[in-house]
Amino acid sequence: MKFSPLFWPVTLKGKSIRILDETALPQKLTYIKAANYQEACRAIKEMKTRAVGQVLLVMYTFLLSYRQHKDLNKVAKAINATRPTLAFEVLTNMVLGWQKSGLDLEKCILGFLEMLKNKRIQQAYVAASLLKDKDVILTHCNVSGLLPLVAEIAKKQGKRVSFYATETRPYLQGSRLTAWELERAHVPVTIITDNMVAYLLSLGKVTKIIVGADHLAKNGDIANKIGTYQIAVTAKYFKIPFYVLCPPPSKLKTGKEIKIEVRPDNELKIYQGLQLAPKNVKAYYPAFDVTPDKLITKHIYLEV
Amino acid sequence: MKFSPLFWPVTLKGKSIRILDETALPQKLTYIKAANYQEACRAIKEMKTRAVGQVLLVMYTFLLSYRQHKDLNKVAKAINATRPTLAFEVLTNMVLGWQKSGLDLEKCILGFLEMLKNKRIQQAYVAASLLKDKDVILTHCNVSGLLPLVAEIAKKQGKRVSFYATETRPYLQGSRLTAWELERAHVPVTIITDNMVAYLLSLGKVTKIIVGADHLAKNGDIANKIGTYQIAVTAKYFKIPFYVLCPPPSKLKTGKEIKIEVRPDNELKIYQGLQLAPKNVKAYYPAFDVTPDKLITKHIYLEV
Repeated sequence: MKFSPLFWPVTLKGKSIRILDETALPQKLTYIKAANYQEACRAIKEMKTRAVGQVLLVMYTFLLSYRQHKDLNKVAKAINATRPTLAFEVLTNMVLGWQKSGLDLEKCILGFLEMLKNKRIQQAYVAASLLKDKDVILTHCNVSGLLPLVAEIAKKQGKRVSFYATETRPYLQGSRLTAWELERAHVPVTIITDNMVAYLLSLGKVTKIIVGADHLAKNGDIANKIGTYQIAVTAKYFKIPFYVLCPPPSKLKTGKEIKIEVRPDNELKIYQGLQLAPKNVKAYYPAFDVTPDKLITKHIYLEV
Repeated sequence: MKFSPLFWPVTLKGKSIRILDETALPQKLTYIKAANYQEACRAIKEMKTRAVGQVLLVMYTFLLSYRQHKDLNKVAKAINATRPTLAFEVLTNMVLGWQKSGLDLEKCILGFLEMLKNKRIQQAYVAASLLKDKDVILTHCNVSGLLPLVAEIAKKQGKRVSFYATETRPYLQGSRLTAWELERAHVPVTIITDNMVAYLLSLGKVTKIIVGADHLAKNGDIANKIGTYQIAVTAKYFKIPFYVLCPPPSKLKTGKEIKIEVRPDNELKIYQGLQLAPKNVKAYYPAFDVTPDKLITKHIYLEV
């Protein structure tokens, strides 16, 4: 199997963590280094990596900090304070729990990562099993390297699929990451702007929708990149199946409890130095939204 | 009443037509000149003006060409061939009809424009009458200067309203034009990206939606800037009233007959010289979509 660089975007090499800089893609495939937990936390805050990349970064940060004999409670606290929407506490509590139980932390973390990798591949198999030959799949934002894998597995099963990727404003992860990784895996992909979904679906051009999730609540509600909710509402209207590749569930009962991060409005008004909107006008930038369980046709779980 | 520069963006001065260059806004409020019908048609193709601006440009182009003793049949043909979605033929047939009937073309055109202006102001009054104090209105793309007028009329009636404007990718008419014109008219406005609508509506932050239309079919279906359909679907889901400021109806029976213009994909992939998406990846850019009558709470007609 060939893996997208986004499938496993963070690794630990020697004394530093290598983080795929997603903000530099697709122009440059480049990695930044974090030599301690403070630098790792900064990379999360600056959105250098997302979703699974954040999970990996957390785990490698603990591993590095453990080797550096840091106070892991402090590390956990710093990680939990980075961004609100991903359930970082599930991870940090897990690691602190291992430590408290006197387990070999090195082995626990590496074992968890190995398992995560295998479970993610399994998840791709489950997703591929839901597809038919000639399926046209609409996706949003980026599902951390899973979609090229899903397409590869489907192809081996004799099913050729193609994709539409929403560009995913304001950070354009859809065009910069998803379209880029599908293109380099030779999977047909077409970019649309986020506002074209209803029209595209009305033309009958899409047979399935697959998105990822940054947070799964116990009742099946998910938080994912802003715009996911709107696609789910539109999918319901046009009766198109809406699948979600999920992370493990958090302890929150429903999506209403998920805290939605609101980011600085200049991140919406300025793109790579280019002023897109009048300077004096306010903008509103919630980075995620919550899609209720009732709009989700099927959750594709990651059981770790 | 104060008018937005976008309310009447095209005028005829001496021997040339002055066209507000919407592509230069909000950085520069600048006008380009067209000295003949060929230059006027080029301005339409290059999207220097849209919607009502196109209607004005057509009428002033006929007036100028008439004064220049041009063959108006040729002029009509060139105009009809510029862009497919606006019902240019309604206008060109009307003018050719006047000429055929031996009417004074100069008077007919100027009379039509005077009536258009009055009818548009009336339309703003009808829209304002639908509003309540503290209404929060979501809009998309740009309604050619009508919204600042609606807000001004509402304010005189003791009703303060505020707006959310979708940025309207790929040309950003929402942030560049609508947010700009509302801001300069001192009407509160907040920009969102096109994918935030469902989340915003789920928060109960919006009480009404008002959009414009480039084409109205006889059955009430409308064509408007791509993204309108998705907002209408989302509005239906959240039970938010969806109003449309319409142009006069065309001769088409339903929206299915409206030809949707598909524009070059680089207009989506590149913004002001900045490459937003991988060069080799395909993109799809339908410039409009059709919102069916059943999703429209109320049409606000322009009766000319």
